[in-house]
Amino acid sequence: MAVYTEVDDDELESFLTGYDLGELVSYKGIAEGVENSNFLMQTTKGSYILTLYEKRVTPADLPFFLGLMDHLAAKGIVCPTPIHGRDGKALRELAGRPAAIVSFLAGVWPRRITPVHCAGLGRAMALFHLAGRDFPGKRPNALSLDGWKHLSTDVQARADEVAPGLADKIGREIGAVTAHWPQNGLPDGVIHADLFPDNVFFLGDKVSGIIDFYFACNDYLAYDLAICLNAWCFEPDGDFNITKARQMLSAYREVRPITDAELAALPWLARGAALRFLLTRPYDWLNRPAGAWVRPKNPLEYLKKLQFHQTVTGPGAYGLG
Amino acid sequence: MAVYTEVDDDELESFLTGYDLGELVSYKGIAEGVENSNFLMQTTKGSYILTLYEKRVTPADLPFFLGLMDHLAAKGIVCPTPIHGRDGKALRELAGRPAAIVSFLAGVWPRRITPVHCAGLGRAMALFHLAGRDFPGKRPNALSLDGWKHLSTDVQARADEVAPGLADKIGREIGAVTAHWPQNGLPDGVIHADLFPDNVFFLGDKVSGIIDFYFACNDYLAYDLAICLNAWCFEPDGDFNITKARQMLSAYREVRPITDAELAALPWLARGAALRFLLTRPYDWLNRPAGAWVRPKNPLEYLKKLQFHQTVTGPGAYGLG
Repeated sequence: MAVYTEVDDDELESFLTGYDLGELVSYKGIAEGVENSNFLMQTTKGSYILTLYEKRVTPADLPFFLGLMDHLAAKGIVCPTPIHGRDGKALRELAGRPAAIVSFLAGVWPRRITPVHCAGLGRAMALFHLAGRDFPGKRPNALSLDGWKHLSTDVQARADEVAPGLADKIGREIGAVTAHWPQNGLPDGVIHADLFPDNVFFLGDKVSGIIDFYFACNDYLAYDLAICLNAWCFEPDGDFNITKARQMLSAYREVRPITDAELAALPWLARGAALRFLLTRPYDWLNRPAGAWVRPKNPLEYLKKLQFHQTVTGPGAYGLG
Repeated sequence: MAVYTEVDDDELESFLTGYDLGELVSYKGIAEGVENSNFLMQTTKGSYILTLYEKRVTPADLPFFLGLMDHLAAKGIVCPTPIHGRDGKALRELAGRPAAIVSFLAGVWPRRITPVHCAGLGRAMALFHLAGRDFPGKRPNALSLDGWKHLSTDVQARADEVAPGLADKIGREIGAVTAHWPQNGLPDGVIHADLFPDNVFFLGDKVSGIIDFYFACNDYLAYDLAICLNAWCFEPDGDFNITKARQMLSAYREVRPITDAELAALPWLARGAALRFLLTRPYDWLNRPAGAWVRPKNPLEYLKKLQFHQTVTGPGAYGLG
């Protein structure tokens, strides 16, 4: 979330006539995230988020994302709910981009993660996984095994610009993870695939909502856990915090049991998740758009996380037997 | 307004205990402007703007700015009103920066200026000038004659990096404007000094508020008019729009009469205002902070505006006899 596209006030006012949202009161570009242009918009009816989908989102995927949010909201998951226009459509066009308005969620994302946050995350993720199981849309995970191989061809050629020796480490890890990736037997369904702290809102200690479903796809449910082990359970200095992991996994399995196969697969899934961000961060770094209003994230953070998972031999390292 | 400093949620929650603003509901960095870090914050009591003052604002000036906003709000000018803490203080510290919370203003700033906007601006500016006349604070205009000379020493050395020949044009213009700058006889008072379209909010055709008083200072009131002739009355292609100027000046003088001396001085004040932005834009361009989440503005826009004012021989060119 950032601002790549400016929207004129008269253009926005005319766009709003397609909705039953009252009159425009204010709108401000939000300086968060990296993928789309986002505006916090207030109308006489309330607060909303207006998103303009920029080029990294494939327009053909938007009905999946918006349909998923509709589906989840109907199941009681607190997430941005697409606002449908007078013609019933949620997906429209503004300033030459696909655009949608979603409901505004109260809450703040945690900058300093505590084990309590991790427990809240685990519970919310499990509820989300259960609610998504009967969602009819399908979207393969473009950033799983095959995607990494594609990405690595782009990244490896220049990875040594990011850090010497990185290309070689990536190549070897892709081989190892591919050889050990679970082939079947794991429960699958819709995963969020980008459940970083800035996508989970809290009010006090309670999760107040999940946002940003623009990487959601069909994959092993436990792969979301693996992403969150990476995104939530390391300290800023790079050390793994087993208490946070235990809290997250325990709270998750109170809502949806984690199977033995999932537990056994977790270390390799965690390596895969670390590899996925190890690949996309240098890609984002090397291809950051001129004029983007956001700071690219440290591309090497995930190398350190990967190196931790490479030492793991079983789920005990994540706090579960 | 942009985001240079991140604020932790727990740090912000603890900061808020100094106020009677209820509980934090959300806060989002705003991607606007260039000077400070700004967050749109919602609490259980309402919407507010949290500003962290970055290094380009002199801390010693903050009591002037906040006191002015208090003064104006008390006089009925719609502007951000500083929120005072339980201890009475509006100016505090957060994340190592001076910080203040002000009320949130409804309205949107106009991206495409019409003559109707210019009339609204003129009226609002005149009301602001009248309301500020008995404000006791004093702050000299750091970006007037003497300031330009200082700035030009920095900028001239590298101005030719921005455009060949620019250093020479700036040098000659400083000489001309200095020689013709009005020495006395013009009404003075508190001016806004940065009344660009993004600092004036509208709801429909009506001005709903003025924001961003962080350049406010004591100077000739007509210098604000001169800044606005530059900021509001040129078309995107660089042509001067006399209808917009006439609307602005006519609406202004319905509220506060423009004296003959002010009218006569207007062309040189307009050249000075163009020069001021011609100097600061290349300065900002050459000194833009690494990692700033904003795009620097075109540094040469004001050269074209200056060249228009250089052809002006009297206030008739601005639509007034």
